[in-house]
Amino acid sequence: MNTDKKTIIVFSGDLDKVMAAMIIARGAAAMGNDVTLFFTFWGLNVLRKEKSPPVKKGILAAMFGWMMPQGANRTTLSKLHMGGMGTAMMRLVMKSKNVPTLQEMVQEAQDLGVKFIACTMSMDVMGITKEELIEGIDFAGVAGYLGEADEANVNLFI
Amino acid sequence: MNTDKKTIIVFSGDLDKVMAAMIIARGAAAMGNDVTLFFTFWGLNVLRKEKSPPVKKGILAAMFGWMMPQGANRTTLSKLHMGGMGTAMMRLVMKSKNVPTLQEMVQEAQDLGVKFIACTMSMDVMGITKEELIEGIDFAGVAGYLGEADEANVNLFI
Amino acid sequence: MNTDKKTIIVFSGDLDKVMAAMIIARGAAAMGNDVTLFFTFWGLNVLRKEKSPPVKKGILAAMFGWMMPQGANRTTLSKLHMGGMGTAMMRLVMKSKNVPTLQEMVQEAQDLGVKFIACTMSMDVMGITKEELIEGIDFAGVAGYLGEADEANVNLFI
Repeated sequence: MNTDKKTIIVFSGDLDKVMAAMIIARGAAAMGNDVTLFFTFWGLNVLRKEKSPPVKKGILAAMFGWMMPQGANRTTLSKLHMGGMGTAMMRLVMKSKNVPTLQEMVQEAQDLGVKFIACTMSMDVMGITKEELIEGIDFAGVAGYLGEADEANVNLFI
Repeated sequence: MNTDKKTIIVFSGDLDKVMAAMIIARGAAAMGNDVTLFFTFWGLNVLRKEKSPPVKKGILAAMFGWMMPQGANRTTLSKLHMGGMGTAMMRLVMKSKNVPTLQEMVQEAQDLGVKFIACTMSMDVMGITKEELIEGIDFAGVAGYLGEADEANVNLFI
Repeated sequence: MNTDKKTIIVFSGDLDKVMAAMIIARGAAAMGNDVTLFFTFWGLNVLRKEKSPPVKKGILAAMFGWMMPQGANRTTLSKLHMGGMGTAMMRLVMKSKNVPTLQEMVQEAQDLGVKFIACTMSMDVMGITKEELIEGIDFAGVAGYLGEADEANVNLFI
């Protein structure tokens, strides 16, 4: 057990929660930690390309894909969304405070060497294919997550 | 400190979140880990029998019992529930992908030796009695949880 | 690594989730643990004074401040809030069971030596100043949190 590794399961796809995950991940990586983010369920939406390539899908998978936010820029607040107004206010405040956007945070985390893993079981259930996700992602199931978590001293579920 | 034990606090009673807890618990148990699930607050609903025995309750306890989902099969998604349509779609997709139902996952986890603990304080506040919960459950408070967590190397709150 | 320290990130500002955080924190502190609570995003609302001193704010900060619950007594349930009825029922049940209110739990945790840290970055984004928070709070960013977490054996995100 060392204190140099952290893992976070990014289950949520909410702007505020994913932002928290990214701030912790960037902070730990900047301090020299190995950091692994395991994206599952709604969290996968953060990794979707804004313009996804044409992928042939069944009707249920297509419906899920259409109903869920496509990419970091389309995520919304878990509270005070208020039909979009609260989320827009939050983005405005962040901009005025020079806080990076969620999309920029994702890029920065990748640049700092944070490891992004997409949960293959969730991808299968939600009908999301590798081509629809941004570059630089690894793919694994629960065994892969547990292997990473066993090497870390801080493991969070967000 | 060993790497052979995991604990998860199952606070949420949402289908998607409890499913995530069960997938991690089953995976870790299958890899030879001791796993303890501590069910509290809304998570207790997952453990309720679908047909509960007649239990005499005060009016507030009865109302809470009536308003909360009774058992794993009545849980709903935390997002995209859409009056039941999104949750039904998710159950349909899971079935088509041969993913076990949440109720089956609970049974499999118990068969794999995962330890289920119901939070006695939450049971008291929500007016849930032992007779209303499925078989094979232990009962403990926060001290019991902390004792388990101190022996584990991965502790999640879901 | 010792087993004598716990940290919890209190991201949520929901009555039920913050209560869970406080119950774990009080329990661990009573058992002799060092406990650090790191309040960020919605969790900061729990620390706001019920009657805040007059603070000059920009329009966005003022709007956020006005839309978010001010202090532990104004928090609401994450589920079954039902326009206030469910939350009122929960407070009534807790009172009838002699469970302390959330505000009392916060006070008890502080009395037991639990360390409260408010996230400075969230305060900046949400426009919350030190004067608006209750007494006995420390202030730090993500590096401060990570320093605490590295010394602990249980780290939760609530």
